[in-house]
Amino acid sequence: MSVYEKLQDLDITLPELTAPVAAFLPFVRSANLLFLSGHIAKMDGKPWVGQLGRELTTEQGQDAARAVAIDLLGTLHGALGSLEKVQRIVKLMVLVNSSTSFTEQHLVANGASELLVEVFGEKGKHARAAFGVAQIPFGSCVEIELVAEVVG
Amino acid sequence: MSVYEKLQDLDITLPELTAPVAAFLPFVRSANLLFLSGHIAKMDGKPWVGQLGRELTTEQGQDAARAVAIDLLGTLHGALGSLEKVQRIVKLMVLVNSSTSFTEQHLVANGASELLVEVFGEKGKHARAAFGVAQIPFGSCVEIELVAEVVG
Amino acid sequence: MSVYEKLQDLDITLPELTAPVAAFLPFVRSANLLFLSGHIAKMDGKPWVGQLGRELTTEQGQDAARAVAIDLLGTLHGALGSLEKVQRIVKLMVLVNSSTSFTEQHLVANGASELLVEVFGEKGKHARAAFGVAQIPFGSCVEIELVAEVVG
Repeated sequence: MSVYEKLQDLDITLPELTAPVAAFLPFVRSANLLFLSGHIAKMDGKPWVGQLGRELTTEQGQDAARAVAIDLLGTLHGALGSLEKVQRIVKLMVLVNSSTSFTEQHLVANGASELLVEVFGEKGKHARAAFGVAQIPFGSCVEIELVAEVVG
Repeated sequence: MSVYEKLQDLDITLPELTAPVAAFLPFVRSANLLFLSGHIAKMDGKPWVGQLGRELTTEQGQDAARAVAIDLLGTLHGALGSLEKVQRIVKLMVLVNSSTSFTEQHLVANGASELLVEVFGEKGKHARAAFGVAQIPFGSCVEIELVAEVVG
Repeated sequence: MSVYEKLQDLDITLPELTAPVAAFLPFVRSANLLFLSGHIAKMDGKPWVGQLGRELTTEQGQDAARAVAIDLLGTLHGALGSLEKVQRIVKLMVLVNSSTSFTEQHLVANGASELLVEVFGEKGKHARAAFGVAQIPFGSCVEIELVAEVVG
């Protein structure tokens, strides 16, 4: 099954690539590495606001992380023209907006990690760092940065 | 206009490259990627102390981020001998010392991003992750890590 | 002295490589760069729990960071078959579970940085970012991500 059939199977529609409203880009490629900017969690196009351990549960955090992964796929698609050019998801950095007592950042991050493996199979398995941060732009609950190896 | 003329135009003097007083280096190069260590914000050579959302305003944070970008330029110059060898600013990680309610890390980070674009033009446009951290060494308000693609 | 003689000299036994219990891997290689996942501090096989500036001292944090570095060496050995294939430790990201007033993340990080230089000599000198985070998975006190340049 191709990556796009898999996405259809999961009933996932990729968002359009949108340029950040600032002096930076959604992605930069250097040789075969594609570096994606930190993408914040959104719901209905607006920042998905809240802190884990305070307003949001681990399960809600997982949903938010999965939503970020879908946005990252949209950026990958926009950057490459085709997701088939992704040779490997190399690395994620998963930032979880956390109270000082919330310690399940790894479970939150799985929401993104598992989707990437569902979509890309073996190529989707990545290295990862997940941790709790004091805040995220716009008060969003999750932010994820991604590095991929690409061809073509 | 060359990068150095642009710096002169902006009335920016680059600092000397100084080795960190520890078991790590200000930069390491691997093939065409140059990885710069996290640089903390300084004012008059001392850590620029304070937390956004508490002691410092967003505008002060932007000034601090711009100051860090100047120090990063100094390290790039020291590492390469010439800033003309910078092929691309690939990626910034911008850490903002934040109270749990401060959510304008992206605005603070623009202080660095905009300077890099002013100095390098298109080559200065980069991917970026900006987020709020609980603390930074020496209590500094901003810390920035940079990855550049270089030649020669 | 070889890397392994050096480890013996330091009385360090490397841990076995263990796969994370999740949809991600302990490491991913892309060309000559090896990206290691964030490794959390453990003591006797369990998360080394605590926050710097609250339950733990800087010295304890340094011990924890050194312990993480040993686990990272175990992963490098497992990934490459031999630590002699490490051409360079390129970069560390050192996350310190910090109260909002703890500002010695750089000293904590030295626990890892100094061990890597002891083991690898010049090849062990790396770029680094160290900072304080709100929390770490399982409540661990330190988490470290590593990038190495490798051959063979």
